[in-house]
Amino acid sequence: MTTRIEKQTGAAFQLKAGDKLKVIDPLGEQVSDMVLFNANDKRERVSSGKTLDFENTILITKGHHLWSNRSQKMMEILEDTNGRNDFLLAPCSPETFQILYNNPDYHPSCFENLYTNLAQYGIEPDDVPTAFNIFMNVQFAADGELSVDPPLSKAGDYVLFEAKMDLIVGLTACSAEQSNNYSFKPIEYEIVSGG
Amino acid sequence: MTTRIEKQTGAAFQLKAGDKLKVIDPLGEQVSDMVLFNANDKRERVSSGKTLDFENTILITKGHHLWSNRSQKMMEILEDTNGRNDFLLAPCSPETFQILYNNPDYHPSCFENLYTNLAQYGIEPDDVPTAFNIFMNVQFAADGELSVDPPLSKAGDYVLFEAKMDLIVGLTACSAEQSNNYSFKPIEYEIVSGG
Repeated sequence: MTTRIEKQTGAAFQLKAGDKLKVIDPLGEQVSDMVLFNANDKRERVSSGKTLDFENTILITKGHHLWSNRSQKMMEILEDTNGRNDFLLAPCSPETFQILYNNPDYHPSCFENLYTNLAQYGIEPDDVPTAFNIFMNVQFAADGELSVDPPLSKAGDYVLFEAKMDLIVGLTACSAEQSNNYSFKPIEYEIVSGG
Repeated sequence: MTTRIEKQTGAAFQLKAGDKLKVIDPLGEQVSDMVLFNANDKRERVSSGKTLDFENTILITKGHHLWSNRSQKMMEILEDTNGRNDFLLAPCSPETFQILYNNPDYHPSCFENLYTNLAQYGIEPDDVPTAFNIFMNVQFAADGELSVDPPLSKAGDYVLFEAKMDLIVGLTACSAEQSNNYSFKPIEYEIVSGG
């Protein structure tokens, strides 16, 4: 069964070790921020620094794992039809829009959509780590400069993950103009039980 | 007064807003991992994802700030005589040596040296974020591949930081062979009171 995350919203749910999670960009050019917590001890969470270290690359895709702050494998990426994801930038937050985009008004954000959905599991805003930004097209120059470019994902592109431990997952349809080329689209996901 | 952190060890101390911290590589080719916490609320800590996002570059140096998970400025970099630091990779940990370097024996690590020194402030291992890796020379290829190269720092190179809030600081002289070209050297630091 496919579940839809409406534009500029989020979801949170649990996976058992062995379950597969398919994150789909149904219309193309949309980004989904994902954070992971060990369902049996929420102090263990996904770590960009550990993942980049163990996988030895900035660009995380098929064949790589997402690692925790305790150096454990949380997920494996089994398939990735688009192939471009970002693990450098924090989820967009109210301050992203105020500071980077000079927008003082209220703006929905992945950070808010993550922590409000994760609250049911006792996870607080301060616990939300740097997200794995599925389909996000962050380019880096030789001098280190970053640019957030329109996603390369086409309608129907997906990334298929396998849980390597029992997990709490936070997942969004990104709220930031620059991440999704001003398109604000939904994201879909499907859980395939490993049992 | 200059304080020495002996090779493969660490330190933790407090700074007041306005204090300056000079981190010195006294012999050259050594790395120092630094983590920061808000001294008045330790759940606020330095964030690589927020820093890369707000500074819009992978290479953080003079003129940049180190940002927290609450989108606040924790430190400003006033001077940087070497100019190459890393904010991608997690502090080396026991698992770094076991998994990346295939070394099953005990090995000192920045992670252990951070959390053991930070314990006096009630900070636990799970609270240690990705560190700002001063002098660390991580090169990234166009395809995203990372390589940990010998530091470019010469004897006496330093980075001068200014605290933008009251801080708890964890600081190490790095324990990893690959980070410091198998040299295992000390790090020195000096605090200049802002008052």
